[in-house]
Amino acid sequence: MAVYTRLGAEEMAGIIAAFDVGTLISAKGIAEGVSNSNWLIETEQDGTGRRFILTIYESRTEVAELPFFLDLLDHLAARGAPVPRTMHDTTGASHRLHRTAEGDKALALIEFLPGVSVSEPTPGQAEAVGGALAQIHLAAADFPGTRANTMALPAWQQLLKDCGREGLESLHPDLGTLVERELAQLAQSWPTDLPRGVIHADLFPDNVLMLGEKVTGLIDFYFACTDLFAYDVAVTHAAWCFGADGSRFDPALSEALLRGYMAVRPMSESERRALPLLARGAALRFLATRAYDWLNTPADALVTPKDPMAFARRLQFYADPANADLFAQKMPV
Amino acid sequence: MAVYTRLGAEEMAGIIAAFDVGTLISAKGIAEGVSNSNWLIETEQDGTGRRFILTIYESRTEVAELPFFLDLLDHLAARGAPVPRTMHDTTGASHRLHRTAEGDKALALIEFLPGVSVSEPTPGQAEAVGGALAQIHLAAADFPGTRANTMALPAWQQLLKDCGREGLESLHPDLGTLVERELAQLAQSWPTDLPRGVIHADLFPDNVLMLGEKVTGLIDFYFACTDLFAYDVAVTHAAWCFGADGSRFDPALSEALLRGYMAVRPMSESERRALPLLARGAALRFLATRAYDWLNTPADALVTPKDPMAFARRLQFYADPANADLFAQKMPV
Repeated sequence: MAVYTRLGAEEMAGIIAAFDVGTLISAKGIAEGVSNSNWLIETEQDGTGRRFILTIYESRTEVAELPFFLDLLDHLAARGAPVPRTMHDTTGASHRLHRTAEGDKALALIEFLPGVSVSEPTPGQAEAVGGALAQIHLAAADFPGTRANTMALPAWQQLLKDCGREGLESLHPDLGTLVERELAQLAQSWPTDLPRGVIHADLFPDNVLMLGEKVTGLIDFYFACTDLFAYDVAVTHAAWCFGADGSRFDPALSEALLRGYMAVRPMSESERRALPLLARGAALRFLATRAYDWLNTPADALVTPKDPMAFARRLQFYADPANADLFAQKMPV
Repeated sequence: MAVYTRLGAEEMAGIIAAFDVGTLISAKGIAEGVSNSNWLIETEQDGTGRRFILTIYESRTEVAELPFFLDLLDHLAARGAPVPRTMHDTTGASHRLHRTAEGDKALALIEFLPGVSVSEPTPGQAEAVGGALAQIHLAAADFPGTRANTMALPAWQQLLKDCGREGLESLHPDLGTLVERELAQLAQSWPTDLPRGVIHADLFPDNVLMLGEKVTGLIDFYFACTDLFAYDVAVTHAAWCFGADGSRFDPALSEALLRGYMAVRPMSESERRALPLLARGAALRFLATRAYDWLNTPADALVTPKDPMAFARRLQFYADPANADLFAQKMPV
């Protein structure tokens, strides 16, 4: 939640003029995104108001990866998936470099979509999100780009190693043991032969715009990569089916999310069998980044780190043998 | 630049439902305002999109003063001044109390106006701002509310006393002497018999929305009060006619701003004679608050304090006898 780059109105008008989207009418810095600067932009073109999100990419996003993310949006939008399309500039480019006091930064102008992010989803909303996730899995089938998952098992191992056993135990006395056990089991059993393709990999409620029970936009594809579809289902399950603190698992949300997904893209028997393990991986993935950020964020930082224990609780839930048949429920296919 | 209060989508929809403005379509926290939380809200009503700014008042704004600020907006807007009007809730109230984890907070829903804030104004823009300032001075003539200026001379004296001579000299070795001399002269000579009424008192470029050379909105009236009109002209002059760091006085901007004001509300001879002194007061007012904030903001604060020296430079400029005839130029009346 930040606007890192400061832009005067004249500079903003110059940026917008490079796109054939009309005249700048309004620009408000918005408190979204952790690592980029974002503005809600309004222009007027041929008497019609148009709206966009302008993103300036700060250091965490590699410019070399932008074509993957931005072309993916265009590809998915063209196939009717609820994602914002990228505006191309008058030369046809999907992103531009902009000179700032801190050096050149990449920027992109992306379609504004209506909708709000829910914080207490209903089963109807979870079902719609499951369906939208399956929709992007299918729509990306003929997308030519690929991108390795930089937040896969080796990254978790490294992040958790950097936290150190002592660091983890400073968060909770049992966390070192839990992490060690889970890392070992996941490293031994992680599946590699399941269907794969482009996944979102970070589909938290914050990254879904909804109106009522309709998904109006999936956003923030900056973790999108090529990996197991069922892992994306597991990530979304971990993100949607618990209270924010990782307690209060909601079986109705779980059932609805899976039903919504399966209605659009039925999972194979082996995908379904892998879900419990994949869900442990998903929980460990966010535990790893959150624990690392928690232990390495300076006290005076602008961004408050998120509680890693919220994902330790999910991990324990998924690893608990009492919940072994969580994903084994009868699902309409 | 901050959003202090967190609101879930469901909570936001509940807030909006208390106003007869249609269904919530979008809500983006915006990085505006130093002491309040603000969202750009979109609703749909009878098939038409509508936009608003939702403000939640954090501790610095006294709820008891909100009727003055909000009624003033309605009064000015009704008289054609370019200010946003306040949406009243279904019971007719201009503001509501909202329960949050940190206790009840006041909120208001205010009309969204197009426009961007310029950072390098042209003379044409300065002239338009002068005209808009005069327009609100005239339009408020029959506004029944009054509010003392809590940021007048006694407040500057107190803030600068709290900074201490040592504190001021830590900002610049000459600042203690400059402040002492100016405070003494202003206390002795501050005029009391000039025309007065409702003034904005903080009309920096950030608080003016423009499209080209047209003023589309004057915003952020939370320092508005009853005081000398000519002092408001002096504040606006200090805010618009220099580079951000207080150097590079621009005589063309100065001339245009005053011309624009005088074209709508001609100043009397005594107001014009008082302007040099009032401008020293305006510069000292922002020097006082900025120096206080600079010396009292914890290093880990979310808000970066603004450089007080930018107003020390303006103060020196206005106090320099070489600039004595700055406001004495021939102005079309």
